[in-house]
Amino acid sequence: MKRASYVDLGFACVDTDRQRRRGFPEVVLCQNKTPRQIVAIARVLLKDKEAPLLLTRLSPAAFRRVGRRVRGIVYDKRAGLAFCRRPKRLKDAGVLVMTAGTSDIPVAEEAVATLALSGFSATRLYDVGVAGVHRVLDKKALLKKARVVIVVAGMEGALASLVSGLVACPVIAVPTSCGYGASFEGLAALLTMLNSCSPGIAVVNIDNGFGAGYLAGSMLRVAY
Amino acid sequence: MKRASYVDLGFACVDTDRQRRRGFPEVVLCQNKTPRQIVAIARVLLKDKEAPLLLTRLSPAAFRRVGRRVRGIVYDKRAGLAFCRRPKRLKDAGVLVMTAGTSDIPVAEEAVATLALSGFSATRLYDVGVAGVHRVLDKKALLKKARVVIVVAGMEGALASLVSGLVACPVIAVPTSCGYGASFEGLAALLTMLNSCSPGIAVVNIDNGFGAGYLAGSMLRVAY
Amino acid sequence: MKRASYVDLGFACVDTDRQRRRGFPEVVLCQNKTPRQIVAIARVLLKDKEAPLLLTRLSPAAFRRVGRRVRGIVYDKRAGLAFCRRPKRLKDAGVLVMTAGTSDIPVAEEAVATLALSGFSATRLYDVGVAGVHRVLDKKALLKKARVVIVVAGMEGALASLVSGLVACPVIAVPTSCGYGASFEGLAALLTMLNSCSPGIAVVNIDNGFGAGYLAGSMLRVAY
Amino acid sequence: MKRASYVDLGFACVDTDRQRRRGFPEVVLCQNKTPRQIVAIARVLLKDKEAPLLLTRLSPAAFRRVGRRVRGIVYDKRAGLAFCRRPKRLKDAGVLVMTAGTSDIPVAEEAVATLALSGFSATRLYDVGVAGVHRVLDKKALLKKARVVIVVAGMEGALASLVSGLVACPVIAVPTSCGYGASFEGLAALLTMLNSCSPGIAVVNIDNGFGAGYLAGSMLRVAY
Amino acid sequence: MKRASYVDLGFACVDTDRQRRRGFPEVVLCQNKTPRQIVAIARVLLKDKEAPLLLTRLSPAAFRRVGRRVRGIVYDKRAGLAFCRRPKRLKDAGVLVMTAGTSDIPVAEEAVATLALSGFSATRLYDVGVAGVHRVLDKKALLKKARVVIVVAGMEGALASLVSGLVACPVIAVPTSCGYGASFEGLAALLTMLNSCSPGIAVVNIDNGFGAGYLAGSMLRVAY
Amino acid sequence: MKRASYVDLGFACVDTDRQRRRGFPEVVLCQNKTPRQIVAIARVLLKDKEAPLLLTRLSPAAFRRVGRRVRGIVYDKRAGLAFCRRPKRLKDAGVLVMTAGTSDIPVAEEAVATLALSGFSATRLYDVGVAGVHRVLDKKALLKKARVVIVVAGMEGALASLVSGLVACPVIAVPTSCGYGASFEGLAALLTMLNSCSPGIAVVNIDNGFGAGYLAGSMLRVAY
Amino acid sequence: MKRASYVDLGFACVDTDRQRRRGFPEVVLCQNKTPRQIVAIARVLLKDKEAPLLLTRLSPAAFRRVGRRVRGIVYDKRAGLAFCRRPKRLKDAGVLVMTAGTSDIPVAEEAVATLALSGFSATRLYDVGVAGVHRVLDKKALLKKARVVIVVAGMEGALASLVSGLVACPVIAVPTSCGYGASFEGLAALLTMLNSCSPGIAVVNIDNGFGAGYLAGSMLRVAY
Amino acid sequence: MKRASYVDLGFACVDTDRQRRRGFPEVVLCQNKTPRQIVAIARVLLKDKEAPLLLTRLSPAAFRRVGRRVRGIVYDKRAGLAFCRRPKRLKDAGVLVMTAGTSDIPVAEEAVATLALSGFSATRLYDVGVAGVHRVLDKKALLKKARVVIVVAGMEGALASLVSGLVACPVIAVPTSCGYGASFEGLAALLTMLNSCSPGIAVVNIDNGFGAGYLAGSMLRVAY
Repeated sequence: MKRASYVDLGFACVDTDRQRRRGFPEVVLCQNKTPRQIVAIARVLLKDKEAPLLLTRLSPAAFRRVGRRVRGIVYDKRAGLAFCRRPKRLKDAGVLVMTAGTSDIPVAEEAVATLALSGFSATRLYDVGVAGVHRVLDKKALLKKARVVIVVAGMEGALASLVSGLVACPVIAVPTSCGYGASFEGLAALLTMLNSCSPGIAVVNIDNGFGAGYLAGSMLRVAY
Repeated sequence: MKRASYVDLGFACVDTDRQRRRGFPEVVLCQNKTPRQIVAIARVLLKDKEAPLLLTRLSPAAFRRVGRRVRGIVYDKRAGLAFCRRPKRLKDAGVLVMTAGTSDIPVAEEAVATLALSGFSATRLYDVGVAGVHRVLDKKALLKKARVVIVVAGMEGALASLVSGLVACPVIAVPTSCGYGASFEGLAALLTMLNSCSPGIAVVNIDNGFGAGYLAGSMLRVAY
Repeated sequence: MKRASYVDLGFACVDTDRQRRRGFPEVVLCQNKTPRQIVAIARVLLKDKEAPLLLTRLSPAAFRRVGRRVRGIVYDKRAGLAFCRRPKRLKDAGVLVMTAGTSDIPVAEEAVATLALSGFSATRLYDVGVAGVHRVLDKKALLKKARVVIVVAGMEGALASLVSGLVACPVIAVPTSCGYGASFEGLAALLTMLNSCSPGIAVVNIDNGFGAGYLAGSMLRVAY
Repeated sequence: MKRASYVDLGFACVDTDRQRRRGFPEVVLCQNKTPRQIVAIARVLLKDKEAPLLLTRLSPAAFRRVGRRVRGIVYDKRAGLAFCRRPKRLKDAGVLVMTAGTSDIPVAEEAVATLALSGFSATRLYDVGVAGVHRVLDKKALLKKARVVIVVAGMEGALASLVSGLVACPVIAVPTSCGYGASFEGLAALLTMLNSCSPGIAVVNIDNGFGAGYLAGSMLRVAY
Repeated sequence: MKRASYVDLGFACVDTDRQRRRGFPEVVLCQNKTPRQIVAIARVLLKDKEAPLLLTRLSPAAFRRVGRRVRGIVYDKRAGLAFCRRPKRLKDAGVLVMTAGTSDIPVAEEAVATLALSGFSATRLYDVGVAGVHRVLDKKALLKKARVVIVVAGMEGALASLVSGLVACPVIAVPTSCGYGASFEGLAALLTMLNSCSPGIAVVNIDNGFGAGYLAGSMLRVAY
Repeated sequence: MKRASYVDLGFACVDTDRQRRRGFPEVVLCQNKTPRQIVAIARVLLKDKEAPLLLTRLSPAAFRRVGRRVRGIVYDKRAGLAFCRRPKRLKDAGVLVMTAGTSDIPVAEEAVATLALSGFSATRLYDVGVAGVHRVLDKKALLKKARVVIVVAGMEGALASLVSGLVACPVIAVPTSCGYGASFEGLAALLTMLNSCSPGIAVVNIDNGFGAGYLAGSMLRVAY
Repeated sequence: MKRASYVDLGFACVDTDRQRRRGFPEVVLCQNKTPRQIVAIARVLLKDKEAPLLLTRLSPAAFRRVGRRVRGIVYDKRAGLAFCRRPKRLKDAGVLVMTAGTSDIPVAEEAVATLALSGFSATRLYDVGVAGVHRVLDKKALLKKARVVIVVAGMEGALASLVSGLVACPVIAVPTSCGYGASFEGLAALLTMLNSCSPGIAVVNIDNGFGAGYLAGSMLRVAY
Repeated sequence: MKRASYVDLGFACVDTDRQRRRGFPEVVLCQNKTPRQIVAIARVLLKDKEAPLLLTRLSPAAFRRVGRRVRGIVYDKRAGLAFCRRPKRLKDAGVLVMTAGTSDIPVAEEAVATLALSGFSATRLYDVGVAGVHRVLDKKALLKKARVVIVVAGMEGALASLVSGLVACPVIAVPTSCGYGASFEGLAALLTMLNSCSPGIAVVNIDNGFGAGYLAGSMLRVAY
């Protein structure tokens, strides 16, 4: 690890070594950062001409201020993020992204967009919660072909257990804060996923679609 | 409500009016009671010649001391309870009692035994958790015929959601304390059941098989 | 279960089989959905000419945008929901809906409206919490006639235990988030209802009036 | 406050000023203390010839070792405590001690014994939980006469709210750890009592019968 | 208890018997009620010509709409409540109301106003938290004279323990939601007060100044 | 999915289809099962001549009773489990299993043994917590070669974040219940791992070494 | 302690003795105080001509009203606080203030500003979280020279453990509410810091930069 | 940091560099370790002839097996730990160790013993909780001289706030699990200490006397 592998901006110590070390550059979590800070960090990261740029949890209002100062940046409204240099061709590595409900879609899209930055495409299967299990069972062929499945679910989050019982590949489970009352902002879904009776589930933080996409990408980097 | 509708033993104020009022006599929760107290309460309750007697959460050791002093009492080892005057003929009212795992069976048996005291039989379907969903789907005919389903599940408790999505009748969900780690002694399953994306689920306390059987009985009393 | 029993809109996989399977069609939880999504789902559901339509947790603002695009839709302001095709004649099946306080009424009305969509009327008994127990005791005749009681209560939620001790029929208990401080947004009432010393209580999620109405409807479908 | 108003034993700094300051001497919570420590502290306290001595949470085994070394000490098995110099004549100041169930009695007896050391007698009314509300309503005359009511209840603890709604005097509520599952060792009853819709309830710690008796005594000291 | 002891307004079942039964009329918690509902309830309560009226948690905005429709009503801005018919002469019964900080004052004022409706005055001692213990010790004479002390404290709430150790009379402890981080909206102060090493503390709900005032009033009614 | 793909023993519905569906047979969680039940389930599973057998959370005492009735079974004392038919040759697929402390080793060994049943070997790196970070940094070559890293850590669980920042491959994090006080039986480590500032971490349940090994195996099955 | 060592303003009892007793004057936590109250307290405190003044958690809006009425006051926007009479020359006592991320900087600045009021300067090292550990390791010389390190971190808060393992001096750890989902507003970071496997960490409340700066100052007062 | 600065025993990677880096050698937490493991680790650590050895949370039973195999080891029964090479002469650096109650003493003794290994003596002041505040106020001279105070307290833990308000030096607060009911095994005291209205408190984990002693030692190493 050589000395100069980060750039200190005072308010941020940008880790310019991450692409080399981890296969993916530092990603900027924009919540609680000012547009000015975001732009400065983005510019440092873009100096590495090979790496993509990913700015997560960026509101449309913040993008309006950031976007005009970062060349080539694109905003993904459904996922609430912006990026540069997405690979032109995405590999189909058998990633399936499922949601239990319609409200879980923004989190799922964050995963899809993160995967795309890693070079992988994803198949979407949205709103197929266990209340109508035939919607999942109807897609057994898709499940069988999958090499990684990402399940995004709020409320009680039972979809992760169901899907895990049907596939041989790893299942990444993302609890969401969708729900009310005793869902306690995603805690119920989180506990469901951690305690699944069906093994082979990798749990990430509540609403952490980015983390799920990143994890899927790292699994596929190992395999490809 | 007439004055004499309870018997005060000092340490217990036995509600002898309950059979009339609620259609089921007072039930004795034996944990934290001495055998001597249990016997005294049981004797008061047995004075009502029409009503059954139910002693829940009675350990084998306590039963050894209680049993010889209460005539006609029977111990149900799987359910950890004792009773007198179970109806000779049980009505088949379409009750289905399911468990997600083998460890949930004692709680399920508590429900079955409580139902029997109410005069209803139950069909058992044990160890059919969502990790192998074909075990449930294979029983669709049974599910379709059910008029009440009791689902007993620990860990993440996802079976309740799945079953609820397949039936028209009410589902009574009993979370159990089976599991470890972040199941937090049944809390995970409880939250799952309360937050189910599939409506029509009646939740009772953790490990409360008795409450589930009682609730099913009260539903059936309405219907029959 | 035949293949075509759902309609995939991309953002929603509408379960058009539910009326057949469960006796009640899919219900749309509108929170976190856009008016555009709500309208699209509603139109799919309305293709089944026999089934009612229920849109819950729909704000007046959202209704203003949804209402003009769905023919025959009616908004229930007290319950915060909209519906189509409510049965013209409601059966009086002995449902009693009680609240502990005035603030619990919106949740109770959600239950009443859901029941109406199932074809059942309800008797309301509001603001009869245990702080003045004579208000409940004065209604013993009503309680005695009930075939299902729904108790809606926030703060400490003690009304459910009291009522349960007075009736033979099932009691559905709905904790509400009314209260402050250590009510922890409905947690106190939820725990009260789960731990009731009086058996025969079916608990649903905090503020889940819809779930209570649905559960009551499914109990009555069994009986009628 | 004069210098010498405590005695330092190294492992305990006995507050010999408390009788003067608070009207009741220091009480020894025996859990986690060795018999040797208990005896040494008791002997310091007994030097004040006017004050009673109270040793709470003292197991029978520990009492066997402590008892023979403290002259005139008496063990109260039901309450799990020991004392010296209880007033010979107890005043009837209208204290009513109620429990919801039989299992709550040891906590109630701790309150009764503490009150007795303060010079007040108590009327006991045990096992009158809300599952059979007529048991309480039948005692309205007793309730009306009360100047302080102590309500001891586990599970959902609803009795405190009910009683509070019937009396003009203060109600001291003691949640107990009796119950199972989502009672979370007394938390459910504690939250119930804190959130009561009926005002005028003084809550103490879970299983803290001593605290309830002490508080009742201090209220009565004000009044008498 | 005679039949007509409440008035049913449909949305509220006003308990007109409470003054007789409890010595204080029903109090209206205004949060979550519409001005229209508040006015209607107030008018029913004011029909009892003897009793005062208390409307708690009433915002200035709501008072502007309620005030002009209820004759003789007065708004107490510091306490966030309104009332009618406060006794002209308040008895000095030795009530001391203390706060740990300046931010706790609104809760304390709610207690003071409630006491005034009961006919008792209070001495205020504000912002005397344990960080500067000499402020409390300087007031020993006041503490000694007190017959009831109300301690209102947020953050860690340690003032209740300190004061309790200095007085013979009951201490009513009100945790407040003042604080940040791990105070968890008053939970830290609540736990402190429940676990005080100093006995004789009556705890009420977080921010429940009304409850504290009511409880103090009921203690004094016993004594006077 | 053909009908006969499970065997119903009454107390267990053994999922004999799992090897085909998921690439790994049903695993028996032995806690809360009787030796008799374990043996019966094991015999059903062993009928599939191709599949290995894994019995987790099996105490030495239970193994003494199970072992003599299941031919060829081997007990792994460090991991607290038993198995049959472990592949003779294990592939080195670059799995690194690390623990933060010595007390975490049993959980790590459960992961290693599960992996071995899947046909993969693992490199162990134990007791390299962040308190002495040079122990990890010294192994950078090992980390670089890894294709999956399993990090097992109790207390604050910070090792997962550190390791994740150094590797490109997925990190599976297992919180353990090692620790005391505010570790709350593994909750602290669990939250740490879920909230890691370093992406690419797959979290499993507290003490769930089996789940980690299974998940690693499923990742490798995808890759190989 | 002399009588007059505080000034009672009615709404605040200003502790004018604190500088003498503790070496630092009373600090005003402005949240929940009106500008008028803040000014009045500030004026009392400024009467002590020797002591600095510190007003924490003061919003820019509130400062606009406070600032013009307190002579010589300065606003620190990054730290959200105002002060008077900061020492002109700050001693370099080897304080190092580190943050894990950019979002943690406001909390860190609160610590830096508090230290400055105590007369000590600090070295800042921001955004050096464990996701890129080389950023910390690159600063070993700085760490070695430090006499106190303040580590400010949200999310999982692992930086405190890492730094503690590298230094001989005390580490003050400040969890922040930065993060989302299962960070539970700083709880995850708080638990991490309390459970650190590396000893020598002093934890303060979530987001309590002031407390950290104060604690560092008190450590240095001992040493200097 | 040179390569060989740890010794890998397979089950433990002993950090032999810690004395150099941190000024105190690695300490062995014995809970969950076998006597054989403890002995092996101890022998590695003892090879550094300059450093002391500390084995914490070592039961008397485990010491009987460890003690005879480690030369010169001494057991401290009150603190539940063992050590070698304690400095012969301890410096009096003004450390004061206080407990609120008698039950907190073992935790305090763990702190005292740890300090002794660092070369510092401590003054003990035990059982001086806030219920009798004169016991603390009587020791103002001692408090004034202190350079570090360690406050050990269970139940509500208020002593830390009180003491902090009286001293200029840092206060290290150790919550203990002493208490019952809503103390939740030390959680109440922990929250109290984190939320103290009096700044300058360094909190460590529940029952972590070792951590407090270590932290005090590191503060003093800075100063001396």
